Amino acid sequence: MSPKIIELDHGSGGTAGHQLITDFFLPAFDNPILNQMDDCAQLTIGKTRIAFSTDTFVVDPIFFPGGNIGDLAVNGTVNDIAMSGAKPLYLSIGMVIEEGFSFDSLRTIVQSIQQAAKTADVQIVTGDTKVMPSGMLDGIIINTSGIGTIDLDINISASRACIGDHIIVSGTIADHGITILTQREKLMIEGDIHSDTAPLNGLVAQLIKYCKDIHVLRDPTRGGLTAVLNEIAKQSAVEIEIQESAIPVKPQIAACCDLLGIDPFSVANEGKLIAFVPESSVEKVMSVFSQHSLSQDAVVIGKVVSKKQSIVYVKTPIGGKRLLDMHVGDQLPRIC
Amino acid sequence: MSPKIIELDHGSGGTAGHQLITDFFLPAFDNPILNQMDDCAQLTIGKTRIAFSTDTFVVDPIFFPGGNIGDLAVNGTVNDIAMSGAKPLYLSIGMVIEEGFSFDSLRTIVQSIQQAAKTADVQIVTGDTKVMPSGMLDGIIINTSGIGTIDLDINISASRACIGDHIIVSGTIADHGITILTQREKLMIEGDIHSDTAPLNGLVAQLIKYCKDIHVLRDPTRGGLTAVLNEIAKQSAVEIEIQESAIPVKPQIAACCDLLGIDPFSVANEGKLIAFVPESSVEKVMSVFSQHSLSQDAVVIGKVVSKKQSIVYVKTPIGGKRLLDMHVGDQLPRIC
Repeated sequence: MSPKIIELDHGSGGTAGHQLITDFFLPAFDNPILNQMDDCAQLTIGKTRIAFSTDTFVVDPIFFPGGNIGDLAVNGTVNDIAMSGAKPLYLSIGMVIEEGFSFDSLRTIVQSIQQAAKTADVQIVTGDTKVMPSGMLDGIIINTSGIGTIDLDINISASRACIGDHIIVSGTIADHGITILTQREKLMIEGDIHSDTAPLNGLVAQLIKYCKDIHVLRDPTRGGLTAVLNEIAKQSAVEIEIQESAIPVKPQIAACCDLLGIDPFSVANEGKLIAFVPESSVEKVMSVFSQHSLSQDAVVIGKVVSKKQSIVYVKTPIGGKRLLDMHVGDQLPRIC
Repeated sequence: MSPKIIELDHGSGGTAGHQLITDFFLPAFDNPILNQMDDCAQLTIGKTRIAFSTDTFVVDPIFFPGGNIGDLAVNGTVNDIAMSGAKPLYLSIGMVIEEGFSFDSLRTIVQSIQQAAKTADVQIVTGDTKVMPSGMLDGIIINTSGIGTIDLDINISASRACIGDHIIVSGTIADHGITILTQREKLMIEGDIHSDTAPLNGLVAQLIKYCKDIHVLRDPTRGGLTAVLNEIAKQSAVEIEIQESAIPVKPQIAACCDLLGIDPFSVANEGKLIAFVPESSVEKVMSVFSQHSLSQDAVVIGKVVSKKQSIVYVKTPIGGKRLLDMHVGDQLPRIC
């Protein structure tokens, strides 16, 4: 039976969110560009290839170690655009603010947007601001949409994973989600826990410069590694095998996950990417990762093993094999 | 003294909203494209001229006579893009939905988005959906961002009004705002009162086809005619004179405004445009208006009289002259 009301899980990176998109939005708005289901739309206007993406940020709390909703909103859309191999150029900012929101907080957020745009080398060229009466919205939410250009020789998409592709993650996972969770629940955890929010377009530009045959790039945000790998398995119709012991997780993040019974594979990241590259390019790509400050912990975590079925397996350290299945919803709402 | 908290007026089409933009956002995000302050950014990518715009819709109630938040969101961004003389092509949809929102309502909204996109001949190519816990957001809000292409020989901007330009409004004003107000306050008013939400890109395409020297196009949404004329006066540094008796207002809308003490000049429209054209083109432009179903009530309402000061005057029927000054805020929040 189909649900009668929207549930929190419908806004997640899990199966409920995917079902809402595939059963509800895709049939309504049906067109070949949307149906690609990449993080951004790839368009051709005249002779120019354009990447176009949108994301609304509803993170709670709005300030957290490592960033705030402002730089998160800039980096999030910059990254979605970059995952098509595009160079992000222009962003829009759509703010909805609750009446009574502090101007000092808004100033801090605006400064973060400005700084993040500068770091990512993008311009804020258009915007919109709405205010909702007190009690009608919790604080502030920010939509960023953006456009970039894609070189003619680039062909990167979640539907391009091939048998034999090696899968590389650019660094430690679960930092952002665990930061938000511990902040929201006011958990006192030892060790440095902060969001990894960062713009990945500089790293992607380097990757593309030195390796023309990257098949897939994806940033594992909502739903984490689990959601992204399952999406790619489905869109490319391939079977993926991941080595559990290879996946980098900071000790303090792993400790948090253990303590809270949370699976780090399904936790959101905001400054990491997953790359699918043919075996012949792994060395070149790893060399690019090793030279960029945002990917010092990059590591091969698995590969595409067959075209038998759209599925993701994890090989455990003791030699077992388990299905890495998507959750119905996220482990917590308002993560980004 | 600068305010310490965000007030409802900061989200309006009035002076408070403008001050937030000019004193706060523009200095932070400073760049020549944003500083143009048109309804959409005009970009040049390669040899392609692109229009890029964003708008978040927070209208309350979400269903109203003449439309709902879905078609309003599509038409709103289509119109902002069209006001640069661009042909809108692609839209993004960013929805934020409150947990517990009815699926039936969402279905109706999605169908309206689909229908409006079809009518305006644009494609929904990318999207994002977030769900906020119950009580954290009132219902649903929708961001639409969009891109279109501008022909090389088009040069339309709010900064291009010239002395002698005739000012034409494409139809009756205040329909949308008065519809929302009467619905929200559950006022029982006689006569047909409905929103004018409509896509204006078809009309703009005809205008451009037959008249290459249109100087300014603007859709008088938040803040109505008053806000738009004052913005143009400021951006073009011109003095504008309007004939009060010429401005078309439906009798039932005028009656509502009288009853409620509301100035129709400052009420939002969602399917009307203001055109500034040189005197030599007025006949041609009026002929185009007369042939399009959305502009049957088009009429010349005034002209640009001097470059002495950035100001808007209204000539009253009895020969008086009053300043058409911007309000601090809107007459009601969440109008669009």
